[in-house]
Amino acid sequence: MDKLKRFGVSIEKKLLERFDKYVRGGNYRNRSEALRDLIRKELVDRQWTEGNEEVAGAIIIVYNHHQKELMDNLVNIQHDYGNIIISSQHVHLDHDTCLEIVVVKGRIDEVFKLEERLKAAKGVKHASLAKSTLAREI
Amino acid sequence: MDKLKRFGVSIEKKLLERFDKYVRGGNYRNRSEALRDLIRKELVDRQWTEGNEEVAGAIIIVYNHHQKELMDNLVNIQHDYGNIIISSQHVHLDHDTCLEIVVVKGRIDEVFKLEERLKAAKGVKHASLAKSTLAREI
Amino acid sequence: MDKLKRFGVSIEKKLLERFDKYVRGGNYRNRSEALRDLIRKELVDRQWTEGNEEVAGAIIIVYNHHQKELMDNLVNIQHDYGNIIISSQHVHLDHDTCLEIVVVKGRIDEVFKLEERLKAAKGVKHASLAKSTLAREI
Amino acid sequence: MDKLKRFGVSIEKKLLERFDKYVRGGNYRNRSEALRDLIRKELVDRQWTEGNEEVAGAIIIVYNHHQKELMDNLVNIQHDYGNIIISSQHVHLDHDTCLEIVVVKGRIDEVFKLEERLKAAKGVKHASLAKSTLAREI
Repeated sequence: MDKLKRFGVSIEKKLLERFDKYVRGGNYRNRSEALRDLIRKELVDRQWTEGNEEVAGAIIIVYNHHQKELMDNLVNIQHDYGNIIISSQHVHLDHDTCLEIVVVKGRIDEVFKLEERLKAAKGVKHASLAKSTLAREI
Repeated sequence: MDKLKRFGVSIEKKLLERFDKYVRGGNYRNRSEALRDLIRKELVDRQWTEGNEEVAGAIIIVYNHHQKELMDNLVNIQHDYGNIIISSQHVHLDHDTCLEIVVVKGRIDEVFKLEERLKAAKGVKHASLAKSTLAREI
Repeated sequence: MDKLKRFGVSIEKKLLERFDKYVRGGNYRNRSEALRDLIRKELVDRQWTEGNEEVAGAIIIVYNHHQKELMDNLVNIQHDYGNIIISSQHVHLDHDTCLEIVVVKGRIDEVFKLEERLKAAKGVKHASLAKSTLAREI
Repeated sequence: MDKLKRFGVSIEKKLLERFDKYVRGGNYRNRSEALRDLIRKELVDRQWTEGNEEVAGAIIIVYNHHQKELMDNLVNIQHDYGNIIISSQHVHLDHDTCLEIVVVKGRIDEVFKLEERLKAAKGVKHASLAKSTLAREI
């Protein structure tokens, strides 16, 4: 656990009232907690605009598993990116449809390339990306 | 000018170092300024998820002004939404292409509908939206 | 596998050249595949603006597992939302830091509430959301 | 006006039904129009991930004009970026609050830097960016 440092902050009275409402509504226990979250969110957002930063994240794809050769194709693609993939997990959404979560840790440009390859595979209907962080120094 | 209120904030040492770098890099003069901006940004982001809030913003469209009847069409659409449009401004990007900025102030759902109408007009190549705020209470 | 329907599309010559470059660069095998992906992406984006639609997705949180009571807290929160959680998976990013993926299937407003609860738990450093789809009718 | 080229597209029956609903709901006159818009949107989105591309856009700032020296400050910043600013326009939102639209045309990294400078100016409460395009070749 990192040591806490304390300092003073000045905020306009009305803005502080709005912020306090946000703090309560968001289940935070105090202003510091909410502010730390806002700072971390901003720093992570920034990080994802730098192509060669190291990040963590997850790519979610949804596909029809009846599509010929798709399963083989997805495995092959994932093997090409074995160095940045931590794990994959399947979920059966319904009789035809699978959701697969690929957890990644690596350089942002590599993560984007992997997402593009998975998205373009025939039978994959949607790909989305959760942009997270290794949380070093934050 | 609203009165400032002061309070103490605790942040992990390493996170504070990263934040201080962000404060300096972002041309802020002190931590309070940067924190106020982060709070306002979050509050405005939230506001834009509520369909019946009152906001300010600008819709930018890019179009080819040679497109038959487009100019008339754009004027007609804007008149349908006269109650939320503050002003329009034309910029000539090149010989064929115009950029038009429509400044709006009104309910979010109305702003989205106007953007959709403008985007779908034949000859409009792109529409984008800057989500801003009336800055009441922030 | 759903039956394919065929129809004709007209596109400006230059735009088509740019699009063909995009199709090749994105590893698509033909224009139809790329267009189907663009359509699905747009439909899913829309869906996530409707609070009471049913969707699939994943919430990624990153936290320090040494934080007192955090593990209990996270389990309790997830039990409150048991009806929309399909699975959770832990990944150890480093000695202190865990990444957890919570796969969800349910109403959008419930998903957002769960994300908010997890994000605000003391010790959670970052939360992000991958917005996906149940892929019904797309 | 660029010449249109025609080609055939295959789409799953159900997806096409959903898309046709989207086409009608979006005020488009036919599928080709809607597809051209989706393609352009994707190409412009891509463009904005490349730091050295030339784009058009608008930065919207909201500020309290009673803030000491803010007006001078904003003018000075804009003069530093005179080469990418096409025009500025003021709107009076209420007695205290101004909204200013700065239309820009230039390299993406320059646009981001200008936005950052304007956002950090003391008294500016919010900055947002509409990402548009010069529409060359689209």
